[in-house]
Amino acid sequence: MKIKSFSQILKESIQKDNSQLCVGLDIDIDKIPSKSNQNLNNLKKFTKKIIESTIDHVVAYKLNLAFFEAFGSKGYQWLEETIKFIDGKKLLIGDGKRGDIGNTTKKYADSLFNHFGFDSITVSPYMGQDSIIPFIKYKNKGIFVLCLTSNPSARDIQLKEASGLTVFRRVISMVRDINDNNNLGLVVGATKPELIADIRLEAGNLPFLIPGIGVQGGNLEDSLIAGNNENGLAIINVSRAIIYSKDPSISARDYNEKINNIIS
Amino acid sequence: MKIKSFSQILKESIQKDNSQLCVGLDIDIDKIPSKSNQNLNNLKKFTKKIIESTIDHVVAYKLNLAFFEAFGSKGYQWLEETIKFIDGKKLLIGDGKRGDIGNTTKKYADSLFNHFGFDSITVSPYMGQDSIIPFIKYKNKGIFVLCLTSNPSARDIQLKEASGLTVFRRVISMVRDINDNNNLGLVVGATKPELIADIRLEAGNLPFLIPGIGVQGGNLEDSLIAGNNENGLAIINVSRAIIYSKDPSISARDYNEKINNIIS
Repeated sequence: MKIKSFSQILKESIQKDNSQLCVGLDIDIDKIPSKSNQNLNNLKKFTKKIIESTIDHVVAYKLNLAFFEAFGSKGYQWLEETIKFIDGKKLLIGDGKRGDIGNTTKKYADSLFNHFGFDSITVSPYMGQDSIIPFIKYKNKGIFVLCLTSNPSARDIQLKEASGLTVFRRVISMVRDINDNNNLGLVVGATKPELIADIRLEAGNLPFLIPGIGVQGGNLEDSLIAGNNENGLAIINVSRAIIYSKDPSISARDYNEKINNIIS
Repeated sequence: MKIKSFSQILKESIQKDNSQLCVGLDIDIDKIPSKSNQNLNNLKKFTKKIIESTIDHVVAYKLNLAFFEAFGSKGYQWLEETIKFIDGKKLLIGDGKRGDIGNTTKKYADSLFNHFGFDSITVSPYMGQDSIIPFIKYKNKGIFVLCLTSNPSARDIQLKEASGLTVFRRVISMVRDINDNNNLGLVVGATKPELIADIRLEAGNLPFLIPGIGVQGGNLEDSLIAGNNENGLAIINVSRAIIYSKDPSISARDYNEKINNIIS
């Protein structure tokens, strides 16, 4: 049987779910409403509640591993239970920004794809292509490489000119060079919408994962108009502005409608 | 009570242990001698055996999180047990190359310093200084920032000229700028010894963590002569060439003697 590439899977999922919204499950113990709720069991309940109230409006969930790892092995159990609870109904993005030498990256692929069963992940490009290649052979799994991130100090490295090409542009070119399996994408922060159109131009049809909407202040409309087109899809991640809102279900529905209105 | 900085702690540990050798506990299920040994309990036994046979010859252990994470929450339990087994007798380096936006990095600090109790960690600089700063406030904990890594594709990003300064040199300058607590260091691969002397010159007294010796083919003598001096200490990491050797105790002892002979 022919294995579908991740870019095909993403396209079909977006059509099926009528959504390009990804909710980031950054469940932060310091932000859970009541102090009495601050144990792992209540965090688990909160996680399930968020999933149940948003699942009709999203194409994917992004699970940032840091929030689980803060609780050690018990936190990773919580991650395993969360993934089981979502039960393949939505795409899962394992946001760990991993990156290491080849034989170590193989172990991360084992972890993220085989053990946890993520459909896609985020990786850091600082160590170059051999830190990414072991992930690529999983054709039906997506790898979003950090390109231009949403945080203020993205400028420290990513925005420097590097041998005639800004560092983040080098990343685009490196990613295109190794995208033989059509399963690579880019992380492009919504906080720099003025650069997203350029990145789309250079990135061809690579899918974008766009964080930075909501609390981080990125511009949804500009980001989507610049970053999303028929061939080059973008998914929009919103974390805190949905999961800590008064009614996560309504927030997710509203974000999804806003996104669909902008791109229609 | 005044809290010692990590650079002071490292210096004192090196004196106490008469060693600048770090053993990397990259316990790889595919490399464990007998096929019958391939379950987690036997990996745990193997880990303890390696620690017992090398502990007299090292200043630190480096635990690359990927090898544990490959087994999910049970792998992180193995990590917790391994740390407990070492029981503060040696410095522990949590090698995860983490890096994320500020509020997420705080969670990684929670994980690596508070939960697991690592004495130091490795981080990736791609997202710039605000992805590193939340770690720095832990003054007695060390943060080794990836500078020039040991893998071949380090050249893809790190060796590019970036606005007049090679990318890895920008990292050195960024790290020095934010080293107010004297707890930052650099990861500098032994596979490019011709650059280590330059890096030492620019890095002042930042400690180096030097991987790439052994299987990766880095040059021990050149790396130490270039990277280590009275004020700027280097610790040498060896993983596979010790833990999968015929007699890890003798290998560790020999490496430690070699290192001490070169720097004496």
